[in-house]
Amino acid sequence: MNPLFPSPIYQKRRAQLNAAFSSGTALFLSNNESPANYPANTYHYRQDSNFLYFFGLSLPNMVGVIDFEQNRSLLFGDDFTIDDIIWMGNQPKLSDLAAHIAVDEVRPLSELASFLKNKQVHFTPPYRADNKIELARLLGKNLEELTPSIELIKRIVALRELKSPEEIVQMEEANEIGVNMHTMVMKHCKPGVAERELFGVAEGIALGMGNGTSFPIILSQNGQTLHNHDHSLILEKGRLLVMDAGAENVMNYCSDHTRTLPVSGKFSPLQKEIYETVYQANMAAIANCKPGIQHIENHRIAVTIITEGLQKIGLMKGNIEESVALGAHALFMPHGLGHQVGLDVHDMEDLGENFVGYDETIQRSKIFGWGSLRMAKTLKPGHVITVEPGIYFIPHLIDIWKNEKKFEAYINYDKVEMYRNFGGIRIEDSVLITENGHKVLGSHLPKSVTEIENILQS
Amino acid sequence: MNPLFPSPIYQKRRAQLNAAFSSGTALFLSNNESPANYPANTYHYRQDSNFLYFFGLSLPNMVGVIDFEQNRSLLFGDDFTIDDIIWMGNQPKLSDLAAHIAVDEVRPLSELASFLKNKQVHFTPPYRADNKIELARLLGKNLEELTPSIELIKRIVALRELKSPEEIVQMEEANEIGVNMHTMVMKHCKPGVAERELFGVAEGIALGMGNGTSFPIILSQNGQTLHNHDHSLILEKGRLLVMDAGAENVMNYCSDHTRTLPVSGKFSPLQKEIYETVYQANMAAIANCKPGIQHIENHRIAVTIITEGLQKIGLMKGNIEESVALGAHALFMPHGLGHQVGLDVHDMEDLGENFVGYDETIQRSKIFGWGSLRMAKTLKPGHVITVEPGIYFIPHLIDIWKNEKKFEAYINYDKVEMYRNFGGIRIEDSVLITENGHKVLGSHLPKSVTEIENILQS
Repeated sequence: MNPLFPSPIYQKRRAQLNAAFSSGTALFLSNNESPANYPANTYHYRQDSNFLYFFGLSLPNMVGVIDFEQNRSLLFGDDFTIDDIIWMGNQPKLSDLAAHIAVDEVRPLSELASFLKNKQVHFTPPYRADNKIELARLLGKNLEELTPSIELIKRIVALRELKSPEEIVQMEEANEIGVNMHTMVMKHCKPGVAERELFGVAEGIALGMGNGTSFPIILSQNGQTLHNHDHSLILEKGRLLVMDAGAENVMNYCSDHTRTLPVSGKFSPLQKEIYETVYQANMAAIANCKPGIQHIENHRIAVTIITEGLQKIGLMKGNIEESVALGAHALFMPHGLGHQVGLDVHDMEDLGENFVGYDETIQRSKIFGWGSLRMAKTLKPGHVITVEPGIYFIPHLIDIWKNEKKFEAYINYDKVEMYRNFGGIRIEDSVLITENGHKVLGSHLPKSVTEIENILQS
Repeated sequence: MNPLFPSPIYQKRRAQLNAAFSSGTALFLSNNESPANYPANTYHYRQDSNFLYFFGLSLPNMVGVIDFEQNRSLLFGDDFTIDDIIWMGNQPKLSDLAAHIAVDEVRPLSELASFLKNKQVHFTPPYRADNKIELARLLGKNLEELTPSIELIKRIVALRELKSPEEIVQMEEANEIGVNMHTMVMKHCKPGVAERELFGVAEGIALGMGNGTSFPIILSQNGQTLHNHDHSLILEKGRLLVMDAGAENVMNYCSDHTRTLPVSGKFSPLQKEIYETVYQANMAAIANCKPGIQHIENHRIAVTIITEGLQKIGLMKGNIEESVALGAHALFMPHGLGHQVGLDVHDMEDLGENFVGYDETIQRSKIFGWGSLRMAKTLKPGHVITVEPGIYFIPHLIDIWKNEKKFEAYINYDKVEMYRNFGGIRIEDSVLITENGHKVLGSHLPKSVTEIENILQS
């Protein structure tokens, strides 16, 4: 059985959810085993994070129900059979599991559809096809008719986004695993090593110390490709290795770090200039993390520093404030500064990015670059957010913009051409917002030019 | 892009399939990205093996079609957008991909449904829910109306089960990765080490050298649980560690090995007796692997040796032939001797176990134990099968049989009680059937008592 918080924590979370509703029923389907190449060959099991938050159990084939009218919770499931026990070992009884999470009643799955009949059922957006089919069956609807509950989504975001002290302990643990993954890769990074080997090392640590990676590892010398899952190259002197990787601890809390390493052990002067700019953007944005600040302001700080840095190098020009507002920097940093982290590495992304990162005070921008920002709203104590500025030279994007003569007032395309094969640099930490400021989660992971060069050369 | 065989190989395979049909169309949906905890957070991509066999490409969002009447093949898909390129890097054009696998025509996915209209469409059993939904949409049917083609299934099994020389090269490569995984775990196995750490080491090697594990690793001191995916224990002196694990190489060919290790580095006399019995069963069944032999005969050889061994130890008694025929040994070995291996570790299990392991000459037994045998039919050159006998002491099963006084003529339950906490032992290799006999795939992995003790103590 997976580790759980003490049962009153789950009880309290469900009560907090219940308090926002006077009627209706919330339905939380567990994630089931997910087949890779045939039904019985399944991926590493991952429970749904909403189920984990309210019902804790990391097990498939269960449904958690909160009956708002009667203010009680139920767990629908079935006990294991003798066949299950031969193949999968002794399993706790459903009633024991229910006691661990303090639900009021246990019922067989076969009773669920009739239990839900004529009820106003709230559910979150299903993201797995098997659960879409099951939801449609349970509710007697077509797949196209499944309408998630906005009320439920908003209320869950309000609860899950503020991490409690016991959750922060778990997040710190996940970050320690992440620090271990990155440190080990730093120690093994040198010319001639295969990217795939370092990838294996990092995956092994994530699985050996926790519940595996929190998202598919990005580990590539082609760092200009933002979500690069290719690991087929051999490390070459002179190139930069971007590693964006995180772990889940055994309670499924997530970490997320990015570091960029010079394969040779030392940044070239050209690399160093760009690296220092990204580093300053990372440090300044983190320094500004505190309650009451909108995270979009931290994004603005980061992209302003990046614009200034690129101007100094001669890659950009013109009025900085205008350049930033119009998004000229997005040629070099097309993505946002960060996102929330928790039980998901993009926390609650299943509920919809705009419900997590935006609210009635701030709408998502339509400008390229700015529009990619996942978390824009005002920071509160308990938020955990990433700060991950970057500078990339994406040949395909450079060609398009250059052809369109886009932002010629702000970009020196001739100079940009000289950096065409540079690759990319990203530096990312996860930051907890505290009452008075912030804390970077996890032990310190080498980040400055000197720290990176020291560990690579040690 | 993933490595591919030369294009004539795919052309030939499709032509061989085509030759069996005079009309109709075969439809092969690629596997898509599979979400873990939100839509964009996907598991390690795994292509469908039938798609790999006929269309080679390890990419999502494609459909391969073989038009039997016109004897031509089509690939339906869409080229990447600029957004895809920013996030995922430069991608080959669909027309270039099609050239690599020698399909005759490329069309956009949007044209597929109308292309299929009024055609007799053959498809294999869908095992992913998203593809069930997509199939139903494409064919204008309800989910319940999807009827896979038995003809297509039988013809695919006939092709895929006989591995060609170039496939055997791939299988050997996968087995080398598997040997590396097991060897590294043997070297790290000692009291005080966490199961989870060894699990991480093995996973890291599989991902670092190939495409990851071929199935979820079984690595547990509770080896009596046949598919134990718990790795939460610390290795203890005196216990046995069962590791059943395999890898996929970069072309998705699979390996599958099991070894059982005494944590202390040396088998106790009790463990050694049982181990030797399983070892003899493994060796004798492998020795009998050759064309013309039914694999169920090898199963019979193995369970006969196990029955004899358990009689010598005093755990079983009575007429051996009867005991074996009735399945009394299934208290100790409830599973079958093996299965086919190829592009899936349980090769072609998506097509249905009985189509893969049985044919018109042999039906699956209804007897407990015998009925678990996945591969029973006559061996041919090119078959790759596992040989994996085991002896387990499953407390729950012992209690049930003992209560029922089941097979009291063949089982000494009093003595069995003394082994209640023994755990389990399994020894498994993958065996290629050759023209004249067989070859165990991969380099030799320590297997005898002496070999195992030597590597553990080295």
